[in-house]
Amino acid sequence: MERVNVFEEFEKAGLYKAIFSRRDIRSQFTDKPIEDDVLSRVLVAAHHAPSVGFMQPWNFIVIKSNDVKRRVHESFVRANERAKAMFIDDKKRQTYENLKLQGILESPLNICVTCDKSRFGPVVIGRTTNFNMDEYSVVCAVENLWLAARAEGLGVGWVSILYDNDLTQILNLPEDVIPIAYLCIGYVTHFPESPELETVGWLPRMKLSDLIYSETWGNDCQTHLPELYKHVVK
Amino acid sequence: MERVNVFEEFEKAGLYKAIFSRRDIRSQFTDKPIEDDVLSRVLVAAHHAPSVGFMQPWNFIVIKSNDVKRRVHESFVRANERAKAMFIDDKKRQTYENLKLQGILESPLNICVTCDKSRFGPVVIGRTTNFNMDEYSVVCAVENLWLAARAEGLGVGWVSILYDNDLTQILNLPEDVIPIAYLCIGYVTHFPESPELETVGWLPRMKLSDLIYSETWGNDCQTHLPELYKHVVK
Repeated sequence: MERVNVFEEFEKAGLYKAIFSRRDIRSQFTDKPIEDDVLSRVLVAAHHAPSVGFMQPWNFIVIKSNDVKRRVHESFVRANERAKAMFIDDKKRQTYENLKLQGILESPLNICVTCDKSRFGPVVIGRTTNFNMDEYSVVCAVENLWLAARAEGLGVGWVSILYDNDLTQILNLPEDVIPIAYLCIGYVTHFPESPELETVGWLPRMKLSDLIYSETWGNDCQTHLPELYKHVVK
Repeated sequence: MERVNVFEEFEKAGLYKAIFSRRDIRSQFTDKPIEDDVLSRVLVAAHHAPSVGFMQPWNFIVIKSNDVKRRVHESFVRANERAKAMFIDDKKRQTYENLKLQGILESPLNICVTCDKSRFGPVVIGRTTNFNMDEYSVVCAVENLWLAARAEGLGVGWVSILYDNDLTQILNLPEDVIPIAYLCIGYVTHFPESPELETVGWLPRMKLSDLIYSETWGNDCQTHLPELYKHVVK
């Protein structure tokens, strides 16, 4: 009886494979069009994310037009010029300049996922103390979308080097709607084995056991978690 | 060749089952202890979330102590008193008062997931334009954790009616570390078929097709997405 709610091993394996093989994609897009039924499944997955007070504050603006993409790309170029200058260490800046940070123009589809702060009125269950909860709900939807896309063979890249004001103007967003994620989506030649920033040596993957505390901040976890498990994904 | 990156149907089914059967749990917790290897898998899933600039800004404070739980619960009670008063419609407020909104004391495990704004220094790739990106990364980790927990048969409830200042004090968080999610976790008697706020008629599930726009805000999606797909979860 106790195992009645637990998934079968093959079901768990599918979920964990998606989690471990999901990547932020900027360079590997192909121009193969995305079938409507595949896009539909990915959006349904997003729509089944948790949301504070069941407010479902998300919208999905599906962008295929080269004109819209080009204007968003211009915003990226401006924002990235400013970002570059923030890396004062010459070597870091040089590495930064060599990184490809977005695939706005090459990916067949862009999706802007937004948060409607006014949906269902000003008082929302669970958003009474922390007013960012609706944005967090939208981020859960993005992560669902990302995992579903991976399972469907679609790469997703989240472009965060963009000015919200530009997106608001280009996409004609109403006053209470804010852009949360601008995503580039498409089939890919391959999914890299590891995150690109790990591969190029920008930052290492942290040791998970260093990130776990017991009861309060800074207390080592007394419970010995067994060898921290990772499904081998091939 | 083109399908090389696509999951097998049974792998997809596992992922979609987790997405569609995940619930926010407040009432169904049992006191069955959580095995270390299960907890380990769930935390590894969280640790493999996307993060801006690969900064991995998360920590996980694993709470089993009744004393800590009790103090967090007191914070909830205070925050909820204030929240209640915000529902000025009598009927809504009455419904609100009858909802069980957290399982802090009944769940065997609480986890506070935090965001370290100072990890790896002030300049982080991708956090140069939008300074909330690190918080969004932590939310992606929470969603991964939530889906993995579902597959392992564990219920998760996100308690958002809490004061950040209380959590900071109770959990002794350093200055640059902010609480993002306070989660109640445990095995459950069952997972409800639908979100509780949908079941009690608080809000309906929105029609996804009403939430999708084409190119810019307000333009109906020209592409007819096929019957919006949902895996039947049994």
